Amino acid sequence: MCFSKSSTHGGNIYEVSREFVVKEKDIVDFSANINPLGLSPLAKKNVVERLSLQRNYPDPDYLELRRAISGYLNVPLNDIIVGNGATELIYLFFRSLKPSSVLIPIPTFSEYERAARLAGCKTRHFLLEERDDFRLSSNKLIRNLEGVEAVVLCNPNNPTGTVLPKQEIKEIAHFCKERNILMLIDEAFVEFVDDESYAAAVGLLGEFKNMIVIRAFTKFFGIPGMRLGYGITKSVKIKEAIQSFKEPWSVNGLAAAAGIAALGDEEYIKKSKSIISVERKYLLEELSKFSWLKPFSTCANFILVKILDKEISSSALRQKLIPFGVLIRDASNFLGLNNSFFRVAVRDREDNDKLILALKKCRGA
Amino acid sequence: MCFSKSSTHGGNIYEVSREFVVKEKDIVDFSANINPLGLSPLAKKNVVERLSLQRNYPDPDYLELRRAISGYLNVPLNDIIVGNGATELIYLFFRSLKPSSVLIPIPTFSEYERAARLAGCKTRHFLLEERDDFRLSSNKLIRNLEGVEAVVLCNPNNPTGTVLPKQEIKEIAHFCKERNILMLIDEAFVEFVDDESYAAAVGLLGEFKNMIVIRAFTKFFGIPGMRLGYGITKSVKIKEAIQSFKEPWSVNGLAAAAGIAALGDEEYIKKSKSIISVERKYLLEELSKFSWLKPFSTCANFILVKILDKEISSSALRQKLIPFGVLIRDASNFLGLNNSFFRVAVRDREDNDKLILALKKCRGA
Repeated sequence: MCFSKSSTHGGNIYEVSREFVVKEKDIVDFSANINPLGLSPLAKKNVVERLSLQRNYPDPDYLELRRAISGYLNVPLNDIIVGNGATELIYLFFRSLKPSSVLIPIPTFSEYERAARLAGCKTRHFLLEERDDFRLSSNKLIRNLEGVEAVVLCNPNNPTGTVLPKQEIKEIAHFCKERNILMLIDEAFVEFVDDESYAAAVGLLGEFKNMIVIRAFTKFFGIPGMRLGYGITKSVKIKEAIQSFKEPWSVNGLAAAAGIAALGDEEYIKKSKSIISVERKYLLEELSKFSWLKPFSTCANFILVKILDKEISSSALRQKLIPFGVLIRDASNFLGLNNSFFRVAVRDREDNDKLILALKKCRGA
Repeated sequence: MCFSKSSTHGGNIYEVSREFVVKEKDIVDFSANINPLGLSPLAKKNVVERLSLQRNYPDPDYLELRRAISGYLNVPLNDIIVGNGATELIYLFFRSLKPSSVLIPIPTFSEYERAARLAGCKTRHFLLEERDDFRLSSNKLIRNLEGVEAVVLCNPNNPTGTVLPKQEIKEIAHFCKERNILMLIDEAFVEFVDDESYAAAVGLLGEFKNMIVIRAFTKFFGIPGMRLGYGITKSVKIKEAIQSFKEPWSVNGLAAAAGIAALGDEEYIKKSKSIISVERKYLLEELSKFSWLKPFSTCANFILVKILDKEISSSALRQKLIPFGVLIRDASNFLGLNNSFFRVAVRDREDNDKLILALKKCRGA
């Protein structure tokens, strides 16, 4: 027993580099779904400029950061709360609102489950089926909502890449509104969707006060190391609950500096959307050429892949690829998946080709 | 009702600058107790060097950082847990161990109270008396421990600056061990004590397994904006509880980078200890010269001061000093104090002289 806890998530290049005695920089990380452009140049500049200011505590109200988000999404300042990554807000949602039960469509990001359980909230699962390409049907979901006090929608969903149109979210929201069911919509990957407005639920907040939309800088703005997320809601109940449980200064000043500048970096935003759109298509096509692989179509910056050859497991494939300098996400520990599934991030052309080559070398087309 | 929440702590230069329409950089902040040297040069360098690495998630095990702490304090790696500031660990202590009641000597840092209450833990107060110069007597404290499940010791104590010798902590620890009372010892300011070993409880951890020592980079290493703290314990129970409630990647990668480098910056550490030792003495002497002020002796990098003139309150004095570019901490909202008390940080000579001059100008000697 020790304080160390290996992550069950993607992105743990440290463990891999320790285990395989390779340098972290020599591993191309397809296991975490991060913008391949890295930090925005304006964000980088602002962080360096504000380094000396870290001798002060962060503004406990994070006004400048919240103003930047307010401008970026055209939402009122007072509807925005910032967090130490989206993770902090997910945990705060369950800890402060204490729903007795929550419906979670699976497979999905595992922290909803953990956050709910730690807050004493019972979890009920709604299985997204492989035969439906893991697509969520709002009608089916609604039939399973009876009796729960909250529902989580990850949109686009991790690890499946499927997206629920705003129209269907609205149908679910109507049902939830009538029955006072809280809705947590995690849009950590929504900026990667080609037509963002097709999915983004921010526009629904005015009509549905039982809803919080959570977003992250982590993925699209490429700063998982710096920890920055935010939530938007018009619900006084949700605002007051989260605020009363929030720890002071949870967002560090450098992440705030990066976020403020990144939201204004229009060139970076445009370039990021474009590279993911092009490379997602390319990587999907290339992966489809392997007879032993089945990639699922995706709206996000990652692709879920099924290994059709029963002789090879996702964990074995992950191990096999590491010596080629490629780290994939073994997706077998997602509830609702098994050891035939892995997930890869969409990266830039050079990296994506490295993945395709490694897959060819380790197993053949 | 909005998501904004003004801090009741020191260090909120943002609110002051908004209220008084002055620039943040034009205010000398005596309200937060931060090393006047600012960031260590080695820390600053390491942060800039590792900026690009923030495109990766932090190592969930924070091995490099924990190794650095392990070397700094000569404690085993597996006894160390890192946090998003000491604050995260204080909240985790109560949330995960769920003591039904805690004894808190007051006046002290207010987050123990809030963290306990949010976890459903009843708080009992032990009043440090002004007539004892707010010194804690271990015998008196022990007589008040009967029936509680936890006790918090802030050592040196904020805002009084008093320090409890290790020998007296040991007496309390013996009593707590027999009765299975958990001990949280917050040493956020211990590195400012001239003879650190006189106070530091790390050496007691082997004998007393019911104890966790929490430390921070915030104050001594001057990075409140970056959020970095850690806890040390040999208790399997405490380790397992905290680990099971801890959110993933709570420490951001740049804070980790700063921490790793700062612990190795021996010149900065030496210089910091020296400047605080000299300036604490100087500021105490200068403050003693005011007939209407009574500064209390202190072992930390801040001084609690009583206003002897009943005509002037701490909040009024704070307001009066702002136009002189000086921000003090109105200490009236500390449980156990009243509006005759304020607190000032020990800063460098130039700043300290600015405080003295402002006090003279606003009221006379």
